[in-house]
Amino acid sequence: MYKCDLKRTSEKIHTFAKFGDAGHGGVTRYSLSPESEKARDYFVERMKAIGAVIETDDLANMYATIPGSDPNAKRIVTGSHCDSVKNGGNYDGILGVIGAMEVLETVTAEKIPHKHPLTAMIWTNEEGSLYPPALMCSGIVCHDYLPPEIAKNFKYEEKMQSKSILDSTVTFGSQLEKFKYRGDKKYRLSPDNYKCLFEMHIEQGPILEDAGCEIGVVDCVLGMFNYRISFSGQSAHAGTFPMKKRKDALFAAAQALVYLHEEIDKLGDSELVYTTGELVIRPCVHTVIPNFVEFSLDVRHESPEVREKVLAIVKTLSQREWAGCKCEIREAWKRDTVYWDKKLFSYVEEAVKELGVKYQYIHSGAGHDAQFAAYVIPSTMIFVVSKDGLSHCEEEFTSDEQCTNAATVLLNAILKADAE
Amino acid sequence: MYKCDLKRTSEKIHTFAKFGDAGHGGVTRYSLSPESEKARDYFVERMKAIGAVIETDDLANMYATIPGSDPNAKRIVTGSHCDSVKNGGNYDGILGVIGAMEVLETVTAEKIPHKHPLTAMIWTNEEGSLYPPALMCSGIVCHDYLPPEIAKNFKYEEKMQSKSILDSTVTFGSQLEKFKYRGDKKYRLSPDNYKCLFEMHIEQGPILEDAGCEIGVVDCVLGMFNYRISFSGQSAHAGTFPMKKRKDALFAAAQALVYLHEEIDKLGDSELVYTTGELVIRPCVHTVIPNFVEFSLDVRHESPEVREKVLAIVKTLSQREWAGCKCEIREAWKRDTVYWDKKLFSYVEEAVKELGVKYQYIHSGAGHDAQFAAYVIPSTMIFVVSKDGLSHCEEEFTSDEQCTNAATVLLNAILKADAE
Repeated sequence: MYKCDLKRTSEKIHTFAKFGDAGHGGVTRYSLSPESEKARDYFVERMKAIGAVIETDDLANMYATIPGSDPNAKRIVTGSHCDSVKNGGNYDGILGVIGAMEVLETVTAEKIPHKHPLTAMIWTNEEGSLYPPALMCSGIVCHDYLPPEIAKNFKYEEKMQSKSILDSTVTFGSQLEKFKYRGDKKYRLSPDNYKCLFEMHIEQGPILEDAGCEIGVVDCVLGMFNYRISFSGQSAHAGTFPMKKRKDALFAAAQALVYLHEEIDKLGDSELVYTTGELVIRPCVHTVIPNFVEFSLDVRHESPEVREKVLAIVKTLSQREWAGCKCEIREAWKRDTVYWDKKLFSYVEEAVKELGVKYQYIHSGAGHDAQFAAYVIPSTMIFVVSKDGLSHCEEEFTSDEQCTNAATVLLNAILKADAE
Repeated sequence: MYKCDLKRTSEKIHTFAKFGDAGHGGVTRYSLSPESEKARDYFVERMKAIGAVIETDDLANMYATIPGSDPNAKRIVTGSHCDSVKNGGNYDGILGVIGAMEVLETVTAEKIPHKHPLTAMIWTNEEGSLYPPALMCSGIVCHDYLPPEIAKNFKYEEKMQSKSILDSTVTFGSQLEKFKYRGDKKYRLSPDNYKCLFEMHIEQGPILEDAGCEIGVVDCVLGMFNYRISFSGQSAHAGTFPMKKRKDALFAAAQALVYLHEEIDKLGDSELVYTTGELVIRPCVHTVIPNFVEFSLDVRHESPEVREKVLAIVKTLSQREWAGCKCEIREAWKRDTVYWDKKLFSYVEEAVKELGVKYQYIHSGAGHDAQFAAYVIPSTMIFVVSKDGLSHCEEEFTSDEQCTNAATVLLNAILKADAE
């Protein structure tokens, strides 16, 4: 089998790590930022060096393409994103771009015969860190192919108005207008020109590591729902208001959180994950009883039946007594489980078996651009082990060897798709 | 008995309500703000109109004094603060200033004979809304008289560096420097020139209203302690990290809050109040497991034994298991119960009996400037009923008649102190 190059892969990992280096091992590289521009400059520099043609679409998604032997064949595309969360790591997203570049560089260096043009790509604003929501540009590009309930979240005009969370006078659209790599809509990924898509990504969880595996052969992106649960009480002075008369929204929320954990855990499903990551409290003054608390609840599982069982528990909240407060629940968004293309999935499995590293089947708990691409063209993903399962933090780590092995799996899976 | 004037009191209430009018029934009037300057302008205008001499000290505490018949007698002082919390009401603090002004205006209008000079005063930055901490300037003025463990919280130099919570480039000291009413340290309230102090204030709780009372004869300010309780866990991706491996700082905090309520409520003490008003969560992103949560715990009770029992419960937190997170507890501050001067207390009770409105004895659960003044000179407080017990919010309400009655009690209690 053809193999990717450790030195070349390593060089890319450590060079990209400089663009947005936050000074303690990780990066802050927001979409459309100067740091992100530098990362793209490097992408362009290396891809031009192997003779790739660079295209950018109206959302600044970038495509670097080397030709195949068949002038009429559609492109096989692989890539990910180069933007990060605040104080993120050196692997989330960018590793999929590095893998894509390494595939094209290996094919060129080794003169590997292939029929289809091969495209390495960068999606704009996957994280949505500065301009929510996440998966913005894959969502817009695949808009016409998305189910209506998802498509409505990806309207071009609305997304262009997404305000920077750091400076509300700046929108995604206004920054995109000025961005060096904004191009033409005609270059958007479409089923007319693209045959299939592979996305390589770090796992962002501990499952592979715990099982002693290096590669995850991904079968789906988990379905999920996200709810907002709020409690409205009454503010009053901490020192003067008797306990029995209080309507303490934080105490209500704390009781509800404990209740949710107790009830959901009774389902006894070890594949289920649920998280309250965000909590808003008002007025948040140490001498004032809180009158309002709202928290998020993110629930993920492959099976719609299990998600429905959890939702039924969530809905009992509004029928119960919570420290005299009014409880309201509302859906923020949800998505069904997205299954990857079975043939591409099998190419990944064959490639990893040939390489001989330990692997397992795995679901993706996180969302990825490939899940929207899957509405347009056959798509799949390859996961690489994450040290301690850590991600979205500066401690993110996967060794250069592991990254190179993953690129090798990606290369060989692509060559199998090419040979169809 | 001498009585204060409804029309005059009412006029002051409704005029002060304009300075910082937030547009829906309440005010935002931060200390040292333009709105606070206008409130002081109005104070000066009315006090000069009755021939009072205006003095301001180096902290912009203001003193308006009318002379008594004895040129050697010390002053009797009454007042409160004119700053508010964000979106506060028209009574907290300012009613004590209005009552003080009304006392001096009544004494002048009615030519009431009195031996001692009478001073109406405004304390600067009682709320500490923009520049923490609360009670800043009474704390500084009474600094030399405070017990060392309290005095250390009121060092002049440190307090001058208190940064605005809205704009960290602005400090209390820098704004004070520019403030119209900054004066001379020699005018500070001191036991050399001041005989005793009365502070009239709204109750800020529902106890008087529930008992059908209009006036509270206050015996003490409750002792209290304030702790910060934190939980440190591990951030990870909401979709990829199995439940059994999580160290969720918010779940830990929610369990701890419920535990604290359960354990403290077992003490069965209806006079005890405890509050978690502030909670900090990091990183506060709906797709990330929180790695850090810290909350405040404010506990108040007259008896040190009861406070110790609660503290013992709080201390058990760090010995227990909280969702795999590390729990740390630290004292932020505490104070002992401050008892008012027994003679002044009896003057208030006699005055309210003479007026014939319903009253009861009451503790102050809230802190007030008078509690620091009490270290310097004999001091006491008068409480006025608060509708629905609400305070620190725009719904704060006490009727003009109730305010005038309270001013009458204040006037007559002061005249009894004058006649000693």
